[in-house]
Amino acid sequence: MSTLPVLPRLMVIDAVNAALKEDFGRIGDITSNATVSPEIQARGVIAARRPGTIAGVPLAEATFHAVDPAVRFVARRTDGAAVETGDVIAEIDGPARAILAGERVALNFLGHLSGIATATRDLVTRVAHTNARICDTRKTAPGLRAFEKHAVLCGGGANHRFGLDDAILIKDNHIAVAGGVTPAIEAARACAGHLVKIEVEVDTLDQLREAVIAAPDAVLLDNMNPETLREAVAIIDDRAIIEASGNVTAETVAAIAEAGVDRISSGWITHSAPSLDVGLDIATG
Amino acid sequence: MSTLPVLPRLMVIDAVNAALKEDFGRIGDITSNATVSPEIQARGVIAARRPGTIAGVPLAEATFHAVDPAVRFVARRTDGAAVETGDVIAEIDGPARAILAGERVALNFLGHLSGIATATRDLVTRVAHTNARICDTRKTAPGLRAFEKHAVLCGGGANHRFGLDDAILIKDNHIAVAGGVTPAIEAARACAGHLVKIEVEVDTLDQLREAVIAAPDAVLLDNMNPETLREAVAIIDDRAIIEASGNVTAETVAAIAEAGVDRISSGWITHSAPSLDVGLDIATG
Amino acid sequence: MSTLPVLPRLMVIDAVNAALKEDFGRIGDITSNATVSPEIQARGVIAARRPGTIAGVPLAEATFHAVDPAVRFVARRTDGAAVETGDVIAEIDGPARAILAGERVALNFLGHLSGIATATRDLVTRVAHTNARICDTRKTAPGLRAFEKHAVLCGGGANHRFGLDDAILIKDNHIAVAGGVTPAIEAARACAGHLVKIEVEVDTLDQLREAVIAAPDAVLLDNMNPETLREAVAIIDDRAIIEASGNVTAETVAAIAEAGVDRISSGWITHSAPSLDVGLDIATG
Amino acid sequence: MSTLPVLPRLMVIDAVNAALKEDFGRIGDITSNATVSPEIQARGVIAARRPGTIAGVPLAEATFHAVDPAVRFVARRTDGAAVETGDVIAEIDGPARAILAGERVALNFLGHLSGIATATRDLVTRVAHTNARICDTRKTAPGLRAFEKHAVLCGGGANHRFGLDDAILIKDNHIAVAGGVTPAIEAARACAGHLVKIEVEVDTLDQLREAVIAAPDAVLLDNMNPETLREAVAIIDDRAIIEASGNVTAETVAAIAEAGVDRISSGWITHSAPSLDVGLDIATG
Amino acid sequence: MSTLPVLPRLMVIDAVNAALKEDFGRIGDITSNATVSPEIQARGVIAARRPGTIAGVPLAEATFHAVDPAVRFVARRTDGAAVETGDVIAEIDGPARAILAGERVALNFLGHLSGIATATRDLVTRVAHTNARICDTRKTAPGLRAFEKHAVLCGGGANHRFGLDDAILIKDNHIAVAGGVTPAIEAARACAGHLVKIEVEVDTLDQLREAVIAAPDAVLLDNMNPETLREAVAIIDDRAIIEASGNVTAETVAAIAEAGVDRISSGWITHSAPSLDVGLDIATG
Amino acid sequence: MSTLPVLPRLMVIDAVNAALKEDFGRIGDITSNATVSPEIQARGVIAARRPGTIAGVPLAEATFHAVDPAVRFVARRTDGAAVETGDVIAEIDGPARAILAGERVALNFLGHLSGIATATRDLVTRVAHTNARICDTRKTAPGLRAFEKHAVLCGGGANHRFGLDDAILIKDNHIAVAGGVTPAIEAARACAGHLVKIEVEVDTLDQLREAVIAAPDAVLLDNMNPETLREAVAIIDDRAIIEASGNVTAETVAAIAEAGVDRISSGWITHSAPSLDVGLDIATG
Repeated sequence: MSTLPVLPRLMVIDAVNAALKEDFGRIGDITSNATVSPEIQARGVIAARRPGTIAGVPLAEATFHAVDPAVRFVARRTDGAAVETGDVIAEIDGPARAILAGERVALNFLGHLSGIATATRDLVTRVAHTNARICDTRKTAPGLRAFEKHAVLCGGGANHRFGLDDAILIKDNHIAVAGGVTPAIEAARACAGHLVKIEVEVDTLDQLREAVIAAPDAVLLDNMNPETLREAVAIIDDRAIIEASGNVTAETVAAIAEAGVDRISSGWITHSAPSLDVGLDIATG
Repeated sequence: MSTLPVLPRLMVIDAVNAALKEDFGRIGDITSNATVSPEIQARGVIAARRPGTIAGVPLAEATFHAVDPAVRFVARRTDGAAVETGDVIAEIDGPARAILAGERVALNFLGHLSGIATATRDLVTRVAHTNARICDTRKTAPGLRAFEKHAVLCGGGANHRFGLDDAILIKDNHIAVAGGVTPAIEAARACAGHLVKIEVEVDTLDQLREAVIAAPDAVLLDNMNPETLREAVAIIDDRAIIEASGNVTAETVAAIAEAGVDRISSGWITHSAPSLDVGLDIATG
Repeated sequence: MSTLPVLPRLMVIDAVNAALKEDFGRIGDITSNATVSPEIQARGVIAARRPGTIAGVPLAEATFHAVDPAVRFVARRTDGAAVETGDVIAEIDGPARAILAGERVALNFLGHLSGIATATRDLVTRVAHTNARICDTRKTAPGLRAFEKHAVLCGGGANHRFGLDDAILIKDNHIAVAGGVTPAIEAARACAGHLVKIEVEVDTLDQLREAVIAAPDAVLLDNMNPETLREAVAIIDDRAIIEASGNVTAETVAAIAEAGVDRISSGWITHSAPSLDVGLDIATG
Repeated sequence: MSTLPVLPRLMVIDAVNAALKEDFGRIGDITSNATVSPEIQARGVIAARRPGTIAGVPLAEATFHAVDPAVRFVARRTDGAAVETGDVIAEIDGPARAILAGERVALNFLGHLSGIATATRDLVTRVAHTNARICDTRKTAPGLRAFEKHAVLCGGGANHRFGLDDAILIKDNHIAVAGGVTPAIEAARACAGHLVKIEVEVDTLDQLREAVIAAPDAVLLDNMNPETLREAVAIIDDRAIIEASGNVTAETVAAIAEAGVDRISSGWITHSAPSLDVGLDIATG
Repeated sequence: MSTLPVLPRLMVIDAVNAALKEDFGRIGDITSNATVSPEIQARGVIAARRPGTIAGVPLAEATFHAVDPAVRFVARRTDGAAVETGDVIAEIDGPARAILAGERVALNFLGHLSGIATATRDLVTRVAHTNARICDTRKTAPGLRAFEKHAVLCGGGANHRFGLDDAILIKDNHIAVAGGVTPAIEAARACAGHLVKIEVEVDTLDQLREAVIAAPDAVLLDNMNPETLREAVAIIDDRAIIEASGNVTAETVAAIAEAGVDRISSGWITHSAPSLDVGLDIATG
Repeated sequence: MSTLPVLPRLMVIDAVNAALKEDFGRIGDITSNATVSPEIQARGVIAARRPGTIAGVPLAEATFHAVDPAVRFVARRTDGAAVETGDVIAEIDGPARAILAGERVALNFLGHLSGIATATRDLVTRVAHTNARICDTRKTAPGLRAFEKHAVLCGGGANHRFGLDDAILIKDNHIAVAGGVTPAIEAARACAGHLVKIEVEVDTLDQLREAVIAAPDAVLLDNMNPETLREAVAIIDDRAIIEASGNVTAETVAAIAEAGVDRISSGWITHSAPSLDVGLDIATG
């Protein structure tokens, strides 16, 4: 997992500061201010309470650092690591007030992103015997897309486009308006920069046959069953990257992969993955 | 549902603009720009693809408006409404480019928040025969807390505190540091403004007996089984609001409620509720 | 004063950066740039030029640090401390340009907030023989509320709610629209989270009698004279926290307090307290 | 007062949005949401409760507009107008919730800025028989400088520089470091753009004599009594604009003005002017 | 030019507001406020003072609208249009103060972006007899990249990647670190999402031969003369998009294009194109 | 060049962070992340590839520091220094990923600002035998004005006003509206603070004669030829600072300067100066 991309430092700082301000509101942690003397030090351990795959450790570290640079944070697991129940993810020590004030934000990042990594890892494992890779979509929580897509990488998945501007994905409505698959792809090619890929979504094998001739970089086969996918793969015949989407579940994913597609995209791994249970146990004194 | 609080307009605009910028990246929807002429108009229908409870309609409306004020958005359901598969949530018409460009952001808000409302409604329904109300926690997606808590209201739930600064919640670590339940509550009361409530978390009935004497506004009974909860309710004897948390699931929630507690808080309804499937069907021309 | 809450670091940094940018405009301190060589070091002393109570020392420290991290700032008084004319509040040394560039912003924070702390302390002292506590209002300078409310704590006062969202305060207009004191309180209770307090403002003893039955957490007795307040206190009979407001001056505050109220709120301590005169004397070389 | 400069629209919008967000916190006006139905309309009147000079009407108008564009705001007085107790400043009508939610922010702007205008007007009136004009300083509340300086204009005063970058003001510390009055002025002139004025502060008549030879645009006579000021005015002999500062009070200002100075600067009018009492009376239905 | 992508509305508004705030500083246009009565109306004409290609009309329009929505702006040319000296680009009428206050910002956008469009158009024209397209680089003015790249489209050019994250461009340093062209491309392919293109920069024909085997989407031939480029084109043999860069000037560009490359990238068109002279003539009354 | 003003630290940090975010997009440098191991260290040298004058070194330093504080940056030239081809401007060492990720933003600042400094220096040199100084205008790239004006200082030039609010510049339209030169200057003087200078633009010698009587601080002689300028200088007779503008080129500037003007303003040095070619050579291992 050593080649996992690193989230840019500025991006992490901005996200952490925004999340802390959301939790601090106007004046911060009034409970700890009232009950904990500023000189009290504490130690804490962030641990997994369920098995899963970890994502978000740099955000957790940056959270405590933003509350008080005096907090020391030692990561025991890095993003992408598998954990069992009870495994220590990080050790923390420093002013008790700062640890208590940062706890929830740090855990919210860790739990949410690790949940996505864990859900991704599950699908990834189910298709490991094939060449298919699980990838994400743009169905992400507003404001968290880059982090959620990072979590997908942590789970062994791959990233689809990050937004509306970094690749062209021609869908049914574009095709309808443009007057067909071929004119849509040609219009896209005329506008696209030479480093912008073009993918086209098709619903039928007839559409697919037309599409392949127009030579997109990738085709998205939407809602086809495994047999139809297999036919589609044969039609494409290595002339485009093949993505399958629709009805992707733990039960169906292996059959989809075995049809020979390159990518299987799942909105579920970002928009519906349950949070991974992670907790912070604090010892003071 | 007519008394549902309204999200402040400035808050909605900020959230929608941020989400659109995340999706637009540097230059916006290059697919639609390439394949859709600017003069083409379209009509669309946002509909539920699963039954559930709707939340986030004002965010969806503001999304299209922010892309292009020329888009007309007519809500057919308001936040808090129950929908069946196929029910129309809103009708849209206007420039096709704008509708296509705003689609994903609008659906991401609607799907995410309606998922929370739907999960909340499920628990609310299971305790409807009791006086217990389902409430949320601070276990929310960073940056989305106010909207997620709004979705909890849409599902018939109630809100816990919104952050670290609007109420005092004394937990085990505060108690340990402060030297016991009583000194912790007294320290909190000495600091708190007269409109700030104080809640204390207790793990045992002995702690509870000590706590009640110190007269907090509320007690949080963490991880107690229904029998213990029932004993706790008797001990409190209407001297404080009673919140139960821990092991709250669709299976356990009714028994917890029947123990006589006032509030049952669930992190699951915000951090792990699956998105509600909502879609936008577009017709052009 | 050791239990005074600490302003969150992120909040202080944001406020200081914004204030410096306001003073620096497009290019910063053109006078010092023109007349002071960058290598010149200076020492400075921030001192009180009038007696009072100090608030804002962390903001002054953060101001110089933001201009140039090479400036050393040693606080000789902490927030909440009483000072006499000439008392040293802080000692500073470092690059002369940075000290000169940060001087006015640091003093503006210190003077403004210490003025509020001093005004608060004056009222607090006048009611020290009673159980009444002086508290603030939402009548604060736009953008500075959290700092001004912190200054009220520094002066020995207490905080009222911080904004429209952290407590319910039902005023005459709400009562009129809701159809009376009782329905207004009931509507509020139905909506409020279990950690949100409800206060109701009453103008007459009849209104008060009705209000108390509806069991709000607090009542605000507006513009009543001491005798009426005394009657009101008797009517309430410990069933709610009692706040008095209106005509609160140095002359009237003791009599109001002696009527037995719990809180006396004053807009004057935030919106009209004169700045405390604090100055920075610099020695170079 | 028709030539009073207009605050830029973008600046007003930003200030108003920031102030509303400060007051709304995470979720807005929970009291009105709970007790006031969304369809209820209201009318309101903003009136002066003390005599004074008005400033901030555009901010009040923009506040209600930002809460809800459906609120109508009709100004009955414009910035700079004198008011007596009871004079109507503006009439408002629209959704009751919006009027209640915007009330405090609108009044905070109006009261604070009108307080400054009123304090300024008082000093202006006391020197009306002379050529001296009252002007402000950089001793302003952080974040509000441009608005406070606008209020000074509303009170008939004049503006000093707006920050560290729009004019050069050489003070004692600059003189000490630069090696004297003459080298300091010469260094400033060498650096300054041709549209940047240079003012030098002097404490003694000897310093003044040296300064005048170096030909600054203005001299600041700090803490001189009227007789010394008179001597200083004679020494300057129309070769520079003359500003007096220090010990400027309602009692002393006329004598200072009669000494023949051009400008009298007062920190008090911005940092210590009490708020002008303005109120909003609402009628619903 | 009807298919030119439209800049997203939110992006235009943000850019215009930031530019206006930069020009307005703390208080706006003090000259017009002093000399122009608020009721005076004016008409103005934005015209080209040199021949060229226009870009930035939507920014100019949004500028005046942001100053005062009462200004009417009628575009007579759209982005991408060719103009001769004297051609009218837009007609404006409305409050004189607003037109004067917005003039410089509007012209700065128009002049800067039209300068880029004009420089691009010049190169585009010189290669019109070939299949080569002129494209931009990341050598753009900080903060203006998306607008400058839009201007390149207006001039008939194409866009290279918009930043570090939307395509992979492997340069000499990456190759050195990765241990050669082949491992670098393979590492990139392993990490890249399926909609991310990979381009590799080569300096020699030997490197090129190795690169082509690794099958990148594009190769960048840096600083090769036309003969070498011709050889390179033959080696690539349609297996990758071919980009040439280095020493691209008005004199050399045709020969480079004639070598058979697909793209010729020029930093000069963004970082060094002189502004196009555009002016605003105002008539008042 | 030791007296060159220092850009405020906060301003540099904000500009650099914004530029990095523009280049990083959603996820940062995907090429380096894919091909460069995080532990690889590199050294780099920023050098001039053309002769010129340097500006922007602090921005380049801050850029690398913002990407990763572990990067060491040692400046070998400071802003304002002259360089020959090959001269080293700075040496860098640290993590290879950070150096590669920051390279383009650092060079974009350096190249753009050094281009302006170099263009300014060229004009400055051409008028060095006169008392005239070259100065800038408000014709700057949106968002970069303060940095571009700093670059003008680096080139030996002087700054005109920074925006609409820091000095009064009365142009033909203001004169037309105000009813003539004299009333315009008088209106300006009545409004202007005592530290705000007033400049008036005149097109004819008759206008000039009228203007001088009204005693502005400066006059701007627009588009006059050297003979007319010489007459104008005689008319002004040291009663105002004299600025010339219009048709300022490398060919004409000396003759304009020799006419005896004080300032010659050029839009070209900011809006059209070509970037100075600076490069970063990296050695890894």
